[in-house]
Amino acid sequence: MKLYYSPHSCALASHIALEKSGTAYEAQRVDFSKNEQRSPEYLRINPKGRVPALITERGILTETPAILAFIAQSFPRAKLAPLDDPYAFAQVQSFNSYLCSTVHVAHAHRVRGSRWADDSAAIEAMRKKVPQSVGACFELIERDMLRGPWVMGEAYGICDIYLFTLSQWLEGDGVDLSPLPKIVDHRRRMREDPVVASVLAAELAA
Amino acid sequence: MKLYYSPHSCALASHIALEKSGTAYEAQRVDFSKNEQRSPEYLRINPKGRVPALITERGILTETPAILAFIAQSFPRAKLAPLDDPYAFAQVQSFNSYLCSTVHVAHAHRVRGSRWADDSAAIEAMRKKVPQSVGACFELIERDMLRGPWVMGEAYGICDIYLFTLSQWLEGDGVDLSPLPKIVDHRRRMREDPVVASVLAAELAA
Repeated sequence: MKLYYSPHSCALASHIALEKSGTAYEAQRVDFSKNEQRSPEYLRINPKGRVPALITERGILTETPAILAFIAQSFPRAKLAPLDDPYAFAQVQSFNSYLCSTVHVAHAHRVRGSRWADDSAAIEAMRKKVPQSVGACFELIERDMLRGPWVMGEAYGICDIYLFTLSQWLEGDGVDLSPLPKIVDHRRRMREDPVVASVLAAELAA
Repeated sequence: MKLYYSPHSCALASHIALEKSGTAYEAQRVDFSKNEQRSPEYLRINPKGRVPALITERGILTETPAILAFIAQSFPRAKLAPLDDPYAFAQVQSFNSYLCSTVHVAHAHRVRGSRWADDSAAIEAMRKKVPQSVGACFELIERDMLRGPWVMGEAYGICDIYLFTLSQWLEGDGVDLSPLPKIVDHRRRMREDPVVASVLAAELAA
């Protein structure tokens, strides 16, 4: 398999999950500073012009929650999700869906405001609200979703990998960390995992 | 099971899927005109203050993609998703993830702009771009995703139910339908399904 990623993007989640799965894969950097995600070559891989994109032997997959569940189902021995219990799996999916549709979206208003308005004052108004809107999402996770020690309780899995990925952006988004002790501790424990550390190092070195 | 929904919301997808599953369920309307989604009673069911929420015998589920996959997995005889093929299932999930994280989000900038900016001129600037941003999403679906006759080709399923749900909003969002003949035809065929028609009628009558 081959993963297209950009450093500091949500593709980190798929990258960590692939490494955790134990499968062989290649990681290919897409250089956003050169706008490579909009090149004709890359648009043939992912017409949305975004990362991640995962090339599999069957075809190309995009969208983080789909890729994470696919890796978990394809490599069951890695135990990255509860695969034999539809309700427990749905709880995992619900968490990941909240991250992609609400948390990541709130964050995206900091640097991708032009997706939703053309006016520069409006884009600046969006940027201004990011600390509050992203902060509110993480406070909800802190209070109602992160069971501890891992998101789903005792079982580590794709929710932890995805939450860790988005929690990389907290400081850049200007979020006050003081109401988020469980999330900050979760992030610290994730960073101490040698597999996670090696993926982070590989992305930044490439 | 009990589904909390509001008419004209994305909860329609879970409602149709439940009806298609053949299981017994109750549908409970949440009155957004009375701000019931923010009442203490409803926030105990869904702390996010949104619909859908599905009460199951195991607990409460939220987020459309998670609920749709849960219904498909819980009632395999309804054949609402490819359950024995992780890659085919991932394609379904990828489509649904795009709908929740990009298409629904683009639409939400028409009436929910206050989530992302406080300034009224900024909120108006967001509203103005909705025909273009939602239209671009549906043009991508038309061109690259809707295989025909159903989203995933010959097999009808949760992607069709979810796409149909969001395509209810096209006219209200001011989207030009002329570049979207496959989506318009898909919507027409979905509406002719007596199960879909009965759910729509039930939501509007309640």
